[in-house]
Amino acid sequence: MILQRKDVLGLEEMTAEEILGVLEMAGRFRAVFDRPVRSVPIMRGRTVVNFFHEPSTRTRISFELAEKRLSADIVNFSTATSSFKKGETLRDTAENLAAMKIDMLIIRHGSPGAAAYLSRVLECSVINAGDGAHEHPTQGLLDIMTMQQRLGDLRGKKVTIIGDISHSRVARSNIWGLNKLGAEVTLCGPPTMVPGALAQLGCKIEFDLHKAVVDADVLNVLRIQLERHATRSFPGNREYHRVYGITPEVVRALKPETFIMHPGPMNRDVEIASEVADGPRQVILDQVANGVAVRMALIYLLSGGDPGALSGAGG
Amino acid sequence: MILQRKDVLGLEEMTAEEILGVLEMAGRFRAVFDRPVRSVPIMRGRTVVNFFHEPSTRTRISFELAEKRLSADIVNFSTATSSFKKGETLRDTAENLAAMKIDMLIIRHGSPGAAAYLSRVLECSVINAGDGAHEHPTQGLLDIMTMQQRLGDLRGKKVTIIGDISHSRVARSNIWGLNKLGAEVTLCGPPTMVPGALAQLGCKIEFDLHKAVVDADVLNVLRIQLERHATRSFPGNREYHRVYGITPEVVRALKPETFIMHPGPMNRDVEIASEVADGPRQVILDQVANGVAVRMALIYLLSGGDPGALSGAGG
Amino acid sequence: MILQRKDVLGLEEMTAEEILGVLEMAGRFRAVFDRPVRSVPIMRGRTVVNFFHEPSTRTRISFELAEKRLSADIVNFSTATSSFKKGETLRDTAENLAAMKIDMLIIRHGSPGAAAYLSRVLECSVINAGDGAHEHPTQGLLDIMTMQQRLGDLRGKKVTIIGDISHSRVARSNIWGLNKLGAEVTLCGPPTMVPGALAQLGCKIEFDLHKAVVDADVLNVLRIQLERHATRSFPGNREYHRVYGITPEVVRALKPETFIMHPGPMNRDVEIASEVADGPRQVILDQVANGVAVRMALIYLLSGGDPGALSGAGG
Repeated sequence: MILQRKDVLGLEEMTAEEILGVLEMAGRFRAVFDRPVRSVPIMRGRTVVNFFHEPSTRTRISFELAEKRLSADIVNFSTATSSFKKGETLRDTAENLAAMKIDMLIIRHGSPGAAAYLSRVLECSVINAGDGAHEHPTQGLLDIMTMQQRLGDLRGKKVTIIGDISHSRVARSNIWGLNKLGAEVTLCGPPTMVPGALAQLGCKIEFDLHKAVVDADVLNVLRIQLERHATRSFPGNREYHRVYGITPEVVRALKPETFIMHPGPMNRDVEIASEVADGPRQVILDQVANGVAVRMALIYLLSGGDPGALSGAGG
Repeated sequence: MILQRKDVLGLEEMTAEEILGVLEMAGRFRAVFDRPVRSVPIMRGRTVVNFFHEPSTRTRISFELAEKRLSADIVNFSTATSSFKKGETLRDTAENLAAMKIDMLIIRHGSPGAAAYLSRVLECSVINAGDGAHEHPTQGLLDIMTMQQRLGDLRGKKVTIIGDISHSRVARSNIWGLNKLGAEVTLCGPPTMVPGALAQLGCKIEFDLHKAVVDADVLNVLRIQLERHATRSFPGNREYHRVYGITPEVVRALKPETFIMHPGPMNRDVEIASEVADGPRQVILDQVANGVAVRMALIYLLSGGDPGALSGAGG
Repeated sequence: MILQRKDVLGLEEMTAEEILGVLEMAGRFRAVFDRPVRSVPIMRGRTVVNFFHEPSTRTRISFELAEKRLSADIVNFSTATSSFKKGETLRDTAENLAAMKIDMLIIRHGSPGAAAYLSRVLECSVINAGDGAHEHPTQGLLDIMTMQQRLGDLRGKKVTIIGDISHSRVARSNIWGLNKLGAEVTLCGPPTMVPGALAQLGCKIEFDLHKAVVDADVLNVLRIQLERHATRSFPGNREYHRVYGITPEVVRALKPETFIMHPGPMNRDVEIASEVADGPRQVILDQVANGVAVRMALIYLLSGGDPGALSGAGG
């Protein structure tokens, strides 16, 4: 058993061995993508519910594609059309779903800990698809998979995460996972967006963008989540772009092989210049493709799938 | 043939034999739930449309799961994303769907009679998933199935339905079905919510909660549908809870084996105390599980399915 | 190969041979509808994304049914629940979808050229499900298929299209396709709604409804798209009905075998009298059924399907 657990709530709780095992399995599924027929029948007759409380395109669709390619039965629902407006509690809704005999619940929720709470009250597996500013483990795994594909073993590799670290579940999942695999993580952003407490997790903090990126092997550029900034913690998009945006000038200062990641959706010409977003250093669409593979791997392994059963697919 | 009909519009029109036949079939499908693979391929290539004009989580998802487990092709749509805002009539929309060669239409609609109307204009089967305050036959069937599981033959059993009877399609479907099976139904709630005319259907009416429950074999506690009460017919949630809520005190007055049902979604501490909702008497999640089985059975039987074909599953 | 192309963006770009080839294939799929099991497994493991930026019931459901009957894996998303509100560009969203290894994108969008733009940036096939007032090729094909079923070879046949031609992608796709197949197209509507420039496409323009219909073999009555008329280009619904509505009086002036089409959704008693909409001349539900068949054929042929592979189904 690669995953000795019922649920995947965050990378904080996973071991390096578990992370590497999931990524190896994801590599096998990624290889299936090049076949004309990309489905495998290993989840036929199993039910997965996608329960999204926050709007999401890419994460929801990525999960849905992963589930379809495993031949699972899928039920989607989002807050907009649900009984939540009728005042039911999260627990009651989740227990109802579970009573319908589902095998897995994928949940995105605005509150940190929502996934963990449901994992305790439900017998079925729960995967956290993002809970407030806490964790987004599948994004962390796909980011790490993308780094691995370029850098191999991540021990000693320098990863710089740039942006609004304090509101970012993506940053948190990256930090936990990268630390476990031995990478050196530097956090960079405006002082209002980079909490000093994260140094305790073993990260370097650097407010000067140039110093933060000049030695990096990879930049992970976070989305400025304008929708989360009720009171702005920075003066404006243009000012942010001027000081922390990844512009062609910033790219020219990088090492030649350094590559650039972004979890999407991008604010072009805010956190990343449009020219860089379309340039030769970015691996953004690799991240997207890896996202489906990582989710297939997690769902498969949590369902008790046999890592050796995916015959004919190489890592 | 267990069901000698094209459509299921309400329990008023079904015979006791039909109801018992559906429930027996549902019991067989319920047994399938305990298998790791819960799908059966008997509806492969058949199309079911879920057409929901009112927001719904549990009923829609329950139908959708039932259809997926029968391997049907499913199309969902709800008013929010439909052409209704373009002014098309219900009939035109339904006829369009039918012209696409669908096999079954599941409809929830705010107007009593909407399902019956469509059943007359469409060749395909129609299942009423709730039409205004008229009927909600699949909820009635799952409630009765849950009672049967505990009480066996319902003849002479005492069922008390508590709440806003006058606005409740759940109550109406329960009353019709329970009467046909020989149970004794008592209705209880504030006088503004319990129309005296229902006594004509053979129900006892009792405004005093204590008297209504003390001899009951089962309580079916209805949701107070706050969203339907434009003008309140009771003074407030706390007042309702004090007089008609199922509190631990009320439970202590019940016979030892009496159990408590609720169709959901619950307003905790309004019609049912949170402690009771989580207590040993409630069978709420059994109702949910039975809901999927009842819907599988109805869809299967309406599609001409052979009751004996579900090999290996016992009742 | 019937279709020598990656994408279907409009009938303007298709040859008569392509159109006839698609319609022949659609005829074969239409024959499958009469079987009890209507699915064919030829798209198993292929992924189709339905990406709808405008509300739509019939077109979306028709595509979805076509895809399901080909056994494709389907992902739906609409603007309301997408990241568009997060400010992502159309191109970025589409490239993300493509990176997840999809085989086909069906797009409806309010901007003319949206489908063509995506077809250039994406490797996968793109089908235009309606782009602004530009084209709606699958509607054009299903309309032509319906005419063919009644009239056979369309060369020299007289087709009159009535309504708001200037805002109608349906009219444009009809005009292109009918011209290629040799039909004679007359456009009719209020002068504010029928741009004279369309005469250059080889259409006759006739503002007098009686003159426009008296010799016609078929009328294609367009929906008055009230939602597109921010500033009304006609005095009102009743006035429109009186002058351009297809009333029983208009029908009595037609040749005996002339039939009446409408792409839906209908505004009864605006562009078409309710009595006519339900009368013996209309073939509206044939159009709907043909729509599913046309979409099955397009998707199948674009995916490299073999026209001879659909064994046992006759044209």
